[in-house]
This record gives sequence, C-alpha cells and structure tokens, in this order.
Amino acid sequence: MQALQVDLGERSYPIYIGSGLLGQTELYRRHISSRQVMVVSNETVAPLYLPRLSEALEGFETASVILPDGERYKTLEVWQQIFDALLSERFNRQCTIVALGGGVVGDMAGFAAACYQRGVHFLQVPTTLLAQVDSSVGGKTGVNHPAGKNMIGAFYQPRCVIIDIGTLDTLDDRQLSAGIAEVIKYGLIDDPEFFFWLEAHMDALLQRDPAALSYAIERSCRDKAQVVAADEREAGRRALLNLGHTFGHAIETGVGYGEWLHGEAVATGICMAMDLSHRLGWASGQDLQRVIELIQRARLPVAPPQGMDRESFLQLMAVDKKVLDGRLRLVLPDGLGNARVTDAFDPAKLKETLDGYGREQD
Amino acid sequence: MQALQVDLGERSYPIYIGSGLLGQTELYRRHISSRQVMVVSNETVAPLYLPRLSEALEGFETASVILPDGERYKTLEVWQQIFDALLSERFNRQCTIVALGGGVVGDMAGFAAACYQRGVHFLQVPTTLLAQVDSSVGGKTGVNHPAGKNMIGAFYQPRCVIIDIGTLDTLDDRQLSAGIAEVIKYGLIDDPEFFFWLEAHMDALLQRDPAALSYAIERSCRDKAQVVAADEREAGRRALLNLGHTFGHAIETGVGYGEWLHGEAVATGICMAMDLSHRLGWASGQDLQRVIELIQRARLPVAPPQGMDRESFLQLMAVDKKVLDGRLRLVLPDGLGNARVTDAFDPAKLKETLDGYGREQD
Repeated sequence: MQALQVDLGERSYPIYIGSGLLGQTELYRRHISSRQVMVVSNETVAPLYLPRLSEALEGFETASVILPDGERYKTLEVWQQIFDALLSERFNRQCTIVALGGGVVGDMAGFAAACYQRGVHFLQVPTTLLAQVDSSVGGKTGVNHPAGKNMIGAFYQPRCVIIDIGTLDTLDDRQLSAGIAEVIKYGLIDDPEFFFWLEAHMDALLQRDPAALSYAIERSCRDKAQVVAADEREAGRRALLNLGHTFGHAIETGVGYGEWLHGEAVATGICMAMDLSHRLGWASGQDLQRVIELIQRARLPVAPPQGMDRESFLQLMAVDKKVLDGRLRLVLPDGLGNARVTDAFDPAKLKETLDGYGREQD
Repeated sequence: MQALQVDLGERSYPIYIGSGLLGQTELYRRHISSRQVMVVSNETVAPLYLPRLSEALEGFETASVILPDGERYKTLEVWQQIFDALLSERFNRQCTIVALGGGVVGDMAGFAAACYQRGVHFLQVPTTLLAQVDSSVGGKTGVNHPAGKNMIGAFYQPRCVIIDIGTLDTLDDRQLSAGIAEVIKYGLIDDPEFFFWLEAHMDALLQRDPAALSYAIERSCRDKAQVVAADEREAGRRALLNLGHTFGHAIETGVGYGEWLHGEAVATGICMAMDLSHRLGWASGQDLQRVIELIQRARLPVAPPQGMDRESFLQLMAVDKKVLDGRLRLVLPDGLGNARVTDAFDPAKLKETLDGYGREQD
C-alpha cells in the first residue's frame, strides 16, 4: 500500500493506494470518529462493492443511499435524496458520509457532506480511474445546473481517500479510457517526464497491467496533491488542472449531460486547447501531433461532436468559472509539460480553432 | 453610525448600524470588489427598498431575484431560483450577492453565495429586527428540509452587515415582536444587565423608540459577535445561542413552516427551557415568572400550539443538530443571565415540562 499526503494544514489528509483496500476495516476505523456512517453509492457500483464495504464497516451504525448512475443525475434534485436518507435515518451532525463510486457519486456525496447540518465528515472511496486520479482528490464537490457544469458546489476536503486498484477490474473499457484523459492532462500541464512515460506505457495501461495502472494513479495523485496544496481554492495555479475542461464542459453541456463521458469531453478539449496553442505559436505542430496521437491511442475522441459549432462553443464557454470580467480565460499548453492560464490570446485564433473543427467534420 | 467588528481572523467583517445606511453608496463601494452584483430579496421587501438600494449601487452591473416571502419558501427548490438568475445573467465567480430582507432571504442568499461556483462574496442588508439582531450576523446560512429546520446549509461569513434602522418603520408589529424574542435570548444566556434593561425598556421598544431600538440592536450584535468570534463553527459555546431553538424548531416543523414566525416559536421555546430549568432546580419560580412576563409583554406566545403533544415534541427534537450519539442536548438557563448546553438532565423532568404545557391547554 502506498500513502501520499495532501498538505492543507489542519485539513491535510492521506491518499491510500493499493489492492484490496476497500475491505480493510483498519483504514475506516482510523478515519471515522463517528458511530453513524452513511454510504452513498450508485446502482452500478453498489451491487459490486457495497457488500464488501459494509462488511469492513462492521461495528458502525451504517445505512446507504443508492443514486441513479450517470452525469445526467448530478442534479440538485438527486442530491436531495442524500438528505432524505440522512434525515429518515436520523443521522446527526457527528455522522460520516462515505462516497463509494465514480466522480459523480464523489462530487455529490462530498457536497452533501459539506452541507448536511452545515458540515459533516466524509471519506472518498473512488471506484473509477477518473475518480481515483482526479475528482476524489482536492475537495472540489458539487452538482451541475442545466446552464453549466459544477456551477453549484463547495470546496470541502475528505478525511482520507481510499483507492482500491482492484475495483478497476470491473470498469468497462470506455470508462478506463475516460480516466486516462485526466492522466494525460497531468503530464501536459507540468510533468513532461510523465507524458513521455505515458507514450511508452499506453498499451500497458489499456491492457490493465497492474504495475502500470498503479504507477499512473500514484503519479497523478502526487501531481494533483502538489497543485492543490499550493492553491486549495483555485486563486491561481490550481486552474491549470482545468486544461481541456472549458472546451470539455461546453461539449458536455451542449450535447446533454451523460452523452459524452467527462473524460471523453476533456480529451477532445485538450486537443482543442493544444490546437489553439499551436495557432498562437506556443506549441509546435509536432507537439500537437504527439498529443493527438496519444489521445487517439487511449481510444478517446479528438474532435467535438457534429452540431457543436463555433457559436455553441462561445455561448457555452461564456459561463465558465474562469471567465473574469467578461474575458474568457483558458488553460493553454506551452509545448509539452507546461501550460498557462491566460486571457491574453487573440480571439480570432480561438475562432479559427473552433471553425477548424467544424470544417473537419464536414 | 455605529460600527462593530466580528473578529474571525481573515474572515473578520464589520457590522454597521444606523439610520439611512441602505442608501449609502460609499459602504457598498468599500465592500464590493466586483463589477457584477446580484440583489436577492423578496416580494414584500423589494417594493419598499430595492429601488433605493439599486440607486446606491449605481456604477455596478446589477440584477435582482425576488423570492416569495415566508419561511415556507426556505426550500432547496426556491433556493435554486437564485442560481437560475445568476446563470441567466451570466454572473461569474467574482460576482457579489447582496441579501436584502429578513432572515429567510439572508439565509438563502448566503447559502447561495457559499455554493455559487463554489463560493462568491456576499453582503447582508437585513430589514427585519430578527435578521438585524441575529440571523445576519455569524455566517449561519441554509435552507429547511421537510424533516427539520436548517438541516442543509453552510457556515459562510458575509463581507459586512449593513443595518439600516429606518427599515424597521415598515415592519409590522408581529414581526417586531418576533425579533424581540431573540433580543431577550441574549440577556438570558450571558448578559443579565441587558435582561434587566429589557424589563425597563420593553414598552419603549414596542413603541419603536429609535434610541431604544438602536441600543437593543447594537448590544445584541455585540453579544452575538463575541460568541461567534469565540466559536465560529459551534464546537461548543456558540450552541448557547440556540436557547429556545430546539423546542422552537419542533414547533415550526410541527405546525408547518411559516404558521408561527421563527421568533414566536423561539419565545415559546425559551419559556419551555426555563420551565425545565425550574423543574430541575436550576432556576427559581420567580425567575421563571420574570421570563414569562417579559415575553408576554413583548406580545409573544408563551405556550406551544394545541396539537403539539409530548410525543410530537420528542419525535421532532430527535433530529435536532445538537443531538449527540442519540442523546438530546438542550440549552437550559441557570437563573437569569447564564445558561448551559447539556444532556445531563433527568428525561422525566423534560416529559413533565412537555406534559405540563399539554395540560395547560386543556
């Protein structure tokens, strides 16, 4: 078992990475100080892993709430079901919430923990690659609004993150690829060596080689923990983690939540950001090609869906959280392994990027 | 103009108290760093004060959202209207929310500020006595759940509180009395001199004597600011501010939100807590009588509504936020001007209190 630390002063917490951790009672005992424990999961993950987790939670007073599966259910309405369960079980302010599932479950359970009786403890037990390498770490929680992704939420840190690599055995290929999109992101924003490693080990990852997966998860968590420790509430540097996300959120909102997986939209968004960087002269054509090829090898889409034209993008990106006084800010790569958050780019080049993708689909 | 400070380190903020402050542009300029300002108000308060506030906000890009008036609308569903407005106006993460209204508006607007794009700035401009002396100060925000008051929310501090005493001119008598219930509370929990002052000046308050109102508001805010500064997240001492609230919330939930005003329910709750203290030997019969008389003079109810029997109270109080590992904790007076948060009381005495009120209504 590996243990990393997210350094956030009194809100610091460990990330445990290993095989079979889901069933290790000792980890829960170490991080749950309450008697009452509410497990939040979804209808796909619960049949697979809830029994084992419940067994590991023996001795606690446990209950569970099972949400429908998918990004389209990451709404205030579904979120409310968590409070209904907590209150019907008469859970008090000292209770603990455990998120068992992917990014949607983690975001909603974490946001419920932030708000139940003005804040209770919670643990992340992510079961998808995307949640393990990204969404379970760093305390971003929330739900979607019809007008924009993650528009309602809170920064709220878990007490620990328990990553059981064994849960990836049941993950379907499409979800595995979606997680790899976020892994590639870390290489691109500030870890060029990791990008090169991914070029060398993409096939091993897709074949679910345990050593390769374990290394990729650990390195991604380490990269993310460093960025979060330096800028918990995204006043600056943390925005780099949104590489590909402004384009990606526009795709997710534009085609309807759940049509594209989050990681798929981010993969295309990374290609679009890289394309813009290339047009701005910040990345070479060769760098652009390497990124596109790596994303294609990960079996991820490299262009937006038909029907998303320039105007759809511009309109949907205007509500992005990084918009500042009317100016769109984007995370744009500087070659491979470096990136910047900036509004200092020629808007005409952005239009070229958006139009370019439109034409490619004709 | 009086200015008090709530000392919370980097989250410290001032409370301004005076006449005509609503229209003082300078105060808003000092505390709003954004261009975009969303005013949240309700259909009763907006016609009276929104024009003047909007005028004072000249130079900002302002919009407003008008909620229905009343505790029964303090729900997740109505809360969502604030996000609809923010997103349809394309307000960004740097925007500021201004709460113009009573406790319900302040709690919902503050909770929306806590959650919009994971947190934006907000200002409190309370227009009821209850909001001025209590709910606008201290950062408790949230909404109700059908199963319990304020069960969903956040601790989130405003940038400042602007109390314009002139807004009390349009407050109806029932609302004025409801606010006085919270004022009496401060005297009882740790300010005996203030309790005696209230006995001497209750008639002046009810006659809306400006000097008396101003003094009562300032002293209440000062008392509350001290408690909040010592215990922002209610780990201990802050729970004293809930004197009368556990009984009161049970009444509000039991009769249906909005039937009784919050302050009316708290007034009765204070009488019930005092009655229990008396039965426990912690308060004399004379002290109990003085409290009941002062609350009656404030034109507030001193007994729960018909239909609220012992079982209703016990069931509704079991979800209270102060319940700890199955044991009900209550704030109970120690004579006049002192109180304790405790679960160390004989449950039989609590039943006597509840049954006693039941009998009185026969």
